[in-house]
Amino acid sequence: MTYRTHHCGQLSISHAGENVVLSGWAFRIRPFGGMVFIDLRDRHGITQLVFDDSENSELCHRIRQINREYVINIQGKVRERSNKNPDIKTGDIEILVDEFTVLSSSDIPPFTLENETDGGDELRMKYRYLDLRRETIRNNILLRHQLGQEVRSYLNSNDFLEIETPCLIKSTPEGARDFIVPSRMNPGTFYALPQSPQTFKQLLMVAGFDKYYQIVRCFRDEDLRADRQPEFTQIDCEMSFVNRDDVLEMFEGLVKHVFKTLKNVDIQNIERINYDEAMSSYGCDKPDLRFEMKINDITSASQHKDFQVFNSAEFVGAICVPGGASFSRKQLDALTDYVKRPQIGAGGIVWVKWDSENGLKSSVDKFYDEADLKQWMELCGGKESDILLLLSGNKNKTLKAAGELRLKVGDDLGLRDPNNYKLCWVLDFPLLEYDEDAKRYFAMHHPFTSPIEQDIEKLNTDPGNVKANAYDLVINGVEVGGGSIRIFDRTLQETMFKVLGFTPEEANNQFGFLLNAFRYGAPPHGGIAFGFDRFAALLGGSESIRDYIPFPKNNQGKDVMLDAPSQISNTQLDELGISLSKTKKEK
Amino acid sequence: MTYRTHHCGQLSISHAGENVVLSGWAFRIRPFGGMVFIDLRDRHGITQLVFDDSENSELCHRIRQINREYVINIQGKVRERSNKNPDIKTGDIEILVDEFTVLSSSDIPPFTLENETDGGDELRMKYRYLDLRRETIRNNILLRHQLGQEVRSYLNSNDFLEIETPCLIKSTPEGARDFIVPSRMNPGTFYALPQSPQTFKQLLMVAGFDKYYQIVRCFRDEDLRADRQPEFTQIDCEMSFVNRDDVLEMFEGLVKHVFKTLKNVDIQNIERINYDEAMSSYGCDKPDLRFEMKINDITSASQHKDFQVFNSAEFVGAICVPGGASFSRKQLDALTDYVKRPQIGAGGIVWVKWDSENGLKSSVDKFYDEADLKQWMELCGGKESDILLLLSGNKNKTLKAAGELRLKVGDDLGLRDPNNYKLCWVLDFPLLEYDEDAKRYFAMHHPFTSPIEQDIEKLNTDPGNVKANAYDLVINGVEVGGGSIRIFDRTLQETMFKVLGFTPEEANNQFGFLLNAFRYGAPPHGGIAFGFDRFAALLGGSESIRDYIPFPKNNQGKDVMLDAPSQISNTQLDELGISLSKTKKEK
Repeated sequence: MTYRTHHCGQLSISHAGENVVLSGWAFRIRPFGGMVFIDLRDRHGITQLVFDDSENSELCHRIRQINREYVINIQGKVRERSNKNPDIKTGDIEILVDEFTVLSSSDIPPFTLENETDGGDELRMKYRYLDLRRETIRNNILLRHQLGQEVRSYLNSNDFLEIETPCLIKSTPEGARDFIVPSRMNPGTFYALPQSPQTFKQLLMVAGFDKYYQIVRCFRDEDLRADRQPEFTQIDCEMSFVNRDDVLEMFEGLVKHVFKTLKNVDIQNIERINYDEAMSSYGCDKPDLRFEMKINDITSASQHKDFQVFNSAEFVGAICVPGGASFSRKQLDALTDYVKRPQIGAGGIVWVKWDSENGLKSSVDKFYDEADLKQWMELCGGKESDILLLLSGNKNKTLKAAGELRLKVGDDLGLRDPNNYKLCWVLDFPLLEYDEDAKRYFAMHHPFTSPIEQDIEKLNTDPGNVKANAYDLVINGVEVGGGSIRIFDRTLQETMFKVLGFTPEEANNQFGFLLNAFRYGAPPHGGIAFGFDRFAALLGGSESIRDYIPFPKNNQGKDVMLDAPSQISNTQLDELGISLSKTKKEK
Repeated sequence: MTYRTHHCGQLSISHAGENVVLSGWAFRIRPFGGMVFIDLRDRHGITQLVFDDSENSELCHRIRQINREYVINIQGKVRERSNKNPDIKTGDIEILVDEFTVLSSSDIPPFTLENETDGGDELRMKYRYLDLRRETIRNNILLRHQLGQEVRSYLNSNDFLEIETPCLIKSTPEGARDFIVPSRMNPGTFYALPQSPQTFKQLLMVAGFDKYYQIVRCFRDEDLRADRQPEFTQIDCEMSFVNRDDVLEMFEGLVKHVFKTLKNVDIQNIERINYDEAMSSYGCDKPDLRFEMKINDITSASQHKDFQVFNSAEFVGAICVPGGASFSRKQLDALTDYVKRPQIGAGGIVWVKWDSENGLKSSVDKFYDEADLKQWMELCGGKESDILLLLSGNKNKTLKAAGELRLKVGDDLGLRDPNNYKLCWVLDFPLLEYDEDAKRYFAMHHPFTSPIEQDIEKLNTDPGNVKANAYDLVINGVEVGGGSIRIFDRTLQETMFKVLGFTPEEANNQFGFLLNAFRYGAPPHGGIAFGFDRFAALLGGSESIRDYIPFPKNNQGKDVMLDAPSQISNTQLDELGISLSKTKKEK
């Protein structure tokens, strides 16, 4: 049969009088007097169908039997609508239907398929194929497709090659946990699924491919948080014969291309901020630059009086909220409650208001005089009608709390417009983090990141203070990408493993293939990886990645539609040479 | 530092006199009198460097210390070569080097990196990053990249969306074995890796995405053969509201686009052949149409004399080899040995020659007279100077053997030119195959393939004779793609599962999500999947897919470079709640 001559987003007034065939879903059905109107939906849009009793009563009788979401095939004539709908592409026309066929019937969907649905998360996930019919989710998936194609377009035109790396690799449990895959052909042994193609892309540089990319699935067996998925997609890139700035420029170009083509936004300036500066001014390594309100250090300016809370603090910091002098007691209480939540853990907020009526007033007037408050205002760049919000305590914790407070106030004041994009690179991260429990250093990015050149000497003597030649791309406070210039010298890589507590045997057992590759002429190289799911969500104006993944898993790592993971048969287990162990976990 | 102003395939006579900076690998080093010549290599090509004792003896001394595959950075001046090399892009020029730096040293590689290498398979796999430096392999990977991009280009321009489907799914062990992945978060349960995204792409059609594709990794835990890999890549496509011919036309367009853009070959005609016709004329379901030499049925024309071999045979078939009357006894013996190999298993060959000198002669002159031989020749379209090769026995086995013999003779006569492309669709496959051991039917493609419409009734009464609405794309005797129109009716899908021996509970347990989806308005749909690795190999003129996969596994499913699969720690096993069982396999 002929299923269609046009799709449902295609017909316009220029087609009036034509006979057409369409197929799609009966999205909305509206009986109206002697007529039935149906919004016929497909991926491309909606076309209004008219069934008219006075033209064909048998047809009209039959169409009254169908329900929402039936799949029908119709033929009819395009005509101008009397009642035009300017909101949709086909709003000028309708089809007077001559004949129709039900291709597929439908039960009533368990939730409405409108943009504002009444379906809860679990229900939507269980019927994901229905959830995906909703326009918002469909548009997310479309955006994701476009992002992929525009990324490829830019990278192809810059001489990158898309090269696939394997999924069944070797377990190297440094960093997050690996998912593992028992090998039936080689009993007692296991593959691992890649957490990223890091070592493969480095091998591709050793192989001379010069510029590599891949939009690639990665796997991490982590305890899940709201925005984490056990499998996720990465735009993975690597370049040879580059310095840091070569990499930054290439990928600034990528990001600008993406914003221009997908959002018609010209990204002008991408700031570059040191990690130390990001931490001290914004209390985090992914600053949201859509608004100022930096953190100011007023420790020394606040410890000369009898206020023990400040005097005993390692750090006193303040943010100045422009116009915040008008904050009510209730607003201030709400902010205090916010910073006292266990996730943030501050003791409370000290405030200083400067308003035209009362001059400078604070919640610590008992301890500080106007000169003190004035000095703090000056240190923070405050002016009349502003408020300072002060936090104190352990330095790192207080900076972090002040950073969270800053974001909360920014949200409250509407300063975080999702359609306003501010980008920055965060640079010069520490190479290593010391873990007090494990009593060893861990790589802040990964063990293949190069120290900055002038710090290489310090790797043996003062590893905690070595800076990495690493960079993160942050958009509106979201880390969208990260990368580094890599180690390409075998000896330096061996030193790095040693600092991380590997014995030479362990290093060789896990990463011998890379150390070996470095024996045969490795070029200087560096790269970056972008979180594809997160980048898509950000471009869609959302912080939740789940609505941008076609078939996501829930917070327990489950696909409730498939019912996966699930039990498998003993035959399968036997063939693989494994059995379930009765561990504490199973209870 | 500045790593390069140009790459190694870029400079030409128009750059003469310019100062340039290059980086790359010292591919070939040729001391020549007071000079040293180096071919500097990168992904883009080779540039000749000259170090001249009379210009700078210190530099020349230093360069004599480096070995092949050192990575160096040089600066120098472009000059016209006296001794031009027309075979390479940069053959008109050379660089007189002023200064160089060793970026990275190299041991002597374990095999030569020339196109004709002395490295055996295992060695090349162990040092794959060196093997990938060879021009042939590099070009394969480049071709693979281009294939991917051209496929995307065509499908994008035809309104397909690239949509990702999950890798961690549910085990549904119908067909090949699944690789499985223990879930740490949900002890005692397992994900499976997808053998293909079949059910997901069908769900995407139910979701209304209309046209889907994905270049996607798939996994099959099969006992490996030479051309099989445990993980492989598929171009996976699906369309809604289509008949079979819509799908065939769309993907004929894809294949023509690929041949035009990658090979500059215009594919004119893509034949359509029924499965039955392919089997009877070519003895296989993937006929090589680069040459004729079809199999002819001469059973009834050969059973009227006293030759028991033919009289007792279910089938006597012949191929006519044009010009084959000149085959020597030795050639005929070789062909006889070929068909007698256990993989083919024929009993021998009967031949009939027709040459100008001796007329019609055969190896069965004792039994048949000239009239018989003449009749056979006529049945096979033979003429003077041709030879008929006859096989007999069980029909299916004999057809298969004759098909193999046909290919062998085609090879011997040079009729299978890899640069001559003949494409065909094979249509109307049987839906089911009966397995004598399991005493049940199996789906020839998969359980979601629709019967052709007029055979649906027969599904309950005569399942063995139901034809599938399925199609394979065959290029030069290689099955490059296959697909079908799918079942989209819940009742028909349930019938299909029943015919395949599923209880309703089993069907629901494994494929309930799909059966459920069919309750909510599923559109008619169909699709196809192409073997990406094989398609790339075919375009590269090779039958081995391994040289077209960046990091392939060997015949035991091992990555010998990584040493994967490998043992994992007891901690990892404990966390996953599994243990190694002492089965027979482990001995």
